[in-house]
Amino acid sequence: MNGAEALIRTAVAAGIDVCFTNPGTTEMQLVGALDAVPEMRAVLGLFEGVCTGAADGYGRMTGKPALTLLHLGPGFANGIANLHNARRAHTPIVNLIGDHATWHLANDPPLASNVESLAWSVSAWVRTTKSARELPADAAEAIAAALTPPGGAATLVVPNDCAWDEVAGPARPVLPGAARRVPDSAVEAAAAALGGDAPSALLLGGAGLREAELLRAAAIAERTGCQLVCDTFIARLERGGSLPVVTRLPYFPEQVREFLSEISQLVLCGAGEPVSFFGYPDGVGRPTPDGCQVVELAAADTDIGAALDALAERLGAGVVPARVPGERPAAPTGALHPGTIGQALAALQPENAIIMDESATTGFAYGAVSTNCPPHTLLGLTGGAIGQGLPCATGASLACPERPVIAFQADGSGMYTLQALWTQAREGLDVTTLICANREYRILRVELGRAGIAEPGPTAESLTSLRDPALDWVSLARGMGVPGVSVDTAEALVKALEGAFAEPGPHLIEAVF
Amino acid sequence: MNGAEALIRTAVAAGIDVCFTNPGTTEMQLVGALDAVPEMRAVLGLFEGVCTGAADGYGRMTGKPALTLLHLGPGFANGIANLHNARRAHTPIVNLIGDHATWHLANDPPLASNVESLAWSVSAWVRTTKSARELPADAAEAIAAALTPPGGAATLVVPNDCAWDEVAGPARPVLPGAARRVPDSAVEAAAAALGGDAPSALLLGGAGLREAELLRAAAIAERTGCQLVCDTFIARLERGGSLPVVTRLPYFPEQVREFLSEISQLVLCGAGEPVSFFGYPDGVGRPTPDGCQVVELAAADTDIGAALDALAERLGAGVVPARVPGERPAAPTGALHPGTIGQALAALQPENAIIMDESATTGFAYGAVSTNCPPHTLLGLTGGAIGQGLPCATGASLACPERPVIAFQADGSGMYTLQALWTQAREGLDVTTLICANREYRILRVELGRAGIAEPGPTAESLTSLRDPALDWVSLARGMGVPGVSVDTAEALVKALEGAFAEPGPHLIEAVF
Repeated sequence: MNGAEALIRTAVAAGIDVCFTNPGTTEMQLVGALDAVPEMRAVLGLFEGVCTGAADGYGRMTGKPALTLLHLGPGFANGIANLHNARRAHTPIVNLIGDHATWHLANDPPLASNVESLAWSVSAWVRTTKSARELPADAAEAIAAALTPPGGAATLVVPNDCAWDEVAGPARPVLPGAARRVPDSAVEAAAAALGGDAPSALLLGGAGLREAELLRAAAIAERTGCQLVCDTFIARLERGGSLPVVTRLPYFPEQVREFLSEISQLVLCGAGEPVSFFGYPDGVGRPTPDGCQVVELAAADTDIGAALDALAERLGAGVVPARVPGERPAAPTGALHPGTIGQALAALQPENAIIMDESATTGFAYGAVSTNCPPHTLLGLTGGAIGQGLPCATGASLACPERPVIAFQADGSGMYTLQALWTQAREGLDVTTLICANREYRILRVELGRAGIAEPGPTAESLTSLRDPALDWVSLARGMGVPGVSVDTAEALVKALEGAFAEPGPHLIEAVF
Repeated sequence: MNGAEALIRTAVAAGIDVCFTNPGTTEMQLVGALDAVPEMRAVLGLFEGVCTGAADGYGRMTGKPALTLLHLGPGFANGIANLHNARRAHTPIVNLIGDHATWHLANDPPLASNVESLAWSVSAWVRTTKSARELPADAAEAIAAALTPPGGAATLVVPNDCAWDEVAGPARPVLPGAARRVPDSAVEAAAAALGGDAPSALLLGGAGLREAELLRAAAIAERTGCQLVCDTFIARLERGGSLPVVTRLPYFPEQVREFLSEISQLVLCGAGEPVSFFGYPDGVGRPTPDGCQVVELAAADTDIGAALDALAERLGAGVVPARVPGERPAAPTGALHPGTIGQALAALQPENAIIMDESATTGFAYGAVSTNCPPHTLLGLTGGAIGQGLPCATGASLACPERPVIAFQADGSGMYTLQALWTQAREGLDVTTLICANREYRILRVELGRAGIAEPGPTAESLTSLRDPALDWVSLARGMGVPGVSVDTAEALVKALEGAFAEPGPHLIEAVF
């Protein structure tokens, strides 16, 4: 077999079964190999940012990497923004970048560029294969690297001749590195921080936001009185039903500072110390106030579940009774605004939904009203690179075809990678996209004010506006084979959500407000 | 004034008057400065690839840089593919990348990444400003670097505090480097190569494809009998009317080799030695056959006009009479296929049109039938990174508002950066987009065959297909405020082109075949 087929067979042997791709000429042997190895499902994206964002969503939901198969430096570059988000989420992904034949690079053909320097910006591991003979083993190592805690992107550059030359066969899987064990001293320090009388909080991230870990954290909270907190933007959070409620940190640094001013001991478990999303002239880079002591229990690359177990045991925290959820909100009526949009979603989201939240300013209201919804998974915009939502929802749906997926999506961000709708249509995915159409980059209107531009001039107004002309998301969706409807009242939104949730396949709802 | 305003004023003083942007929080001061300095026109793109591609089109048409204003590493990454094309076209562009405040980077906030390593992959010059005080001078140097022959992207990373801190004022323009003078020995060698009896060709690129240079080259051809040739993909070519006909090199390396097998002396003038666009197992990286001697007259960074003048003088080439153009083709009838599509465009394109050709396989037929069209400018896909067409047409139209612009566009490539249609609508640009909707990545069907996959399996078939569902470009355009029509006969295409050319503003025609 050729190197390409050996590579795909190596990935299948390691348990990988989906490849998100937009291939080009240098990937033709790999495309041929995808036909030869039907255990690998190939999914076409019409833009590389769709492929990488889908791989992120898939990896967050399954814990295992998808392949991306991308075309040289420029094709990979188109996928970098969503790989940036994946990097911040520690999502395992294996990127395959087809490149020119090894002997051709020195001729500097038009599509040549410095692929590795692009790859390193978002990858935990990068290698350029030197010969077909080394390709299967390189692939096995890439997969192991992607899965080594805390998880990340491993990027393998595959020169075309390495794909077309003959090889002996696939390589055996390589064992990923193990999660670090948290030292007893860290458990001791965390127990001291939480066990005293001072107000404390446990800041959870990564695996700390999964069901078993959350229940353990709730027991610790029950025992010590600490709050359970998570970052504003999380990779994945299990919530709703009888799961404990975790408080999201607010967004702006002065809000974080105020929030933490009532905490004396902050214990980190799978999350880093809070960092200002942006710096402002007040100079606050890390908003933790002086009076708040930060103690690290478990870094991202540790066994977070074991760390929580050890801490619970040390504190004598038992099993906590399941939370009795309150009423979920009723369906709203009246005008659309962030409150009614969030309420409509919370009132209607189906059991076991996956919600990809890139709703930006519109969505902050949703968090508070959705704690009593049926169990659901929330995926967040971890790296701040907009354009994650539609692709990530696409990948999450491919990972969990039996679960309804909701892309709760700001309009400005959605335009970055709208091509994902086509993949949803082609694959028949059960994704409901709810476009929050305020027809502005509204966060930037806020940020203009924070930058001292209280009265934006016509240029600032224009550069933060999505009007003139207004986007028509129903037409955009139709153009890619996704049925859509536009609504401008809460009643119509409720009806549209009910319709979308009742029918399988992709739907788009444009909520104009 | 703050650093942001001083930067924009420095750019205006250096003659820059347009800024393509998709700003974020770290660019708010710069957005404010765009209001303070109305001499700079700000144009919003809904995706960064639109901004960089538009800057490329603008730079190709004006010879001077536009600004792009982009948001941190991920925002810049979204613009890399079209900057790659611009790099191969030697287009002057000044990229401004807003970044975190200098003091905040060490905190590694979510949107932090290695911006410079991304920037170097597509830039001739990169700098991160260290303080507001240095920002105006850095900007002046960036502009000079972009304009220094052969021209390229200069990328200035602007930490947010450098934008908001106060400065004394703008910096004076810096003189760009001069074009190198071609040595007499090169002129002598070129004259010897062309002046003998052996069959010869002058391979023109860069400024060699502008009107004055082409006329000079035609005089040399008249005198020596050499052919005038250009690369398959050129940055900008003036053609039609009474301009001399330049033969495009074919695409595949074996075709180039065959073409050059009848040439004994190949003189390079603003173009490099031909390089295979991709390497294949036959191992041909440079298709020039052994029997063809390559002589460099003028590299890309030289004064190409002066070199041609010197060569013409050395050869005693006088002024050549203007070519008498033949008949342009009649409007076609019948079924749509690449032949009738190219013929329809050639039959109807208005006087003085700018044609951005990203038509891929569909467009090869157009070249031969359009030599007798009225004078027009052709822009090509220089770097092979698809998604150039719609943005580049947008920028070309902003550069030349009085000229009709035609985006001759493949459907697969068009989907990469379709957001450009919205900018065309907002700015009321006179751009006619002709989508060649074969609903396939047809070039990849060809490449599968070349890779030995004569009978693509269902996966290869699926990964190269834009059907299931078929894209509906009329709906996509409507979603962004551009009126569109779908046609499937030559007669309907002719009517649609006539309508689009008769009416100002953007139009889209989907030619399904």
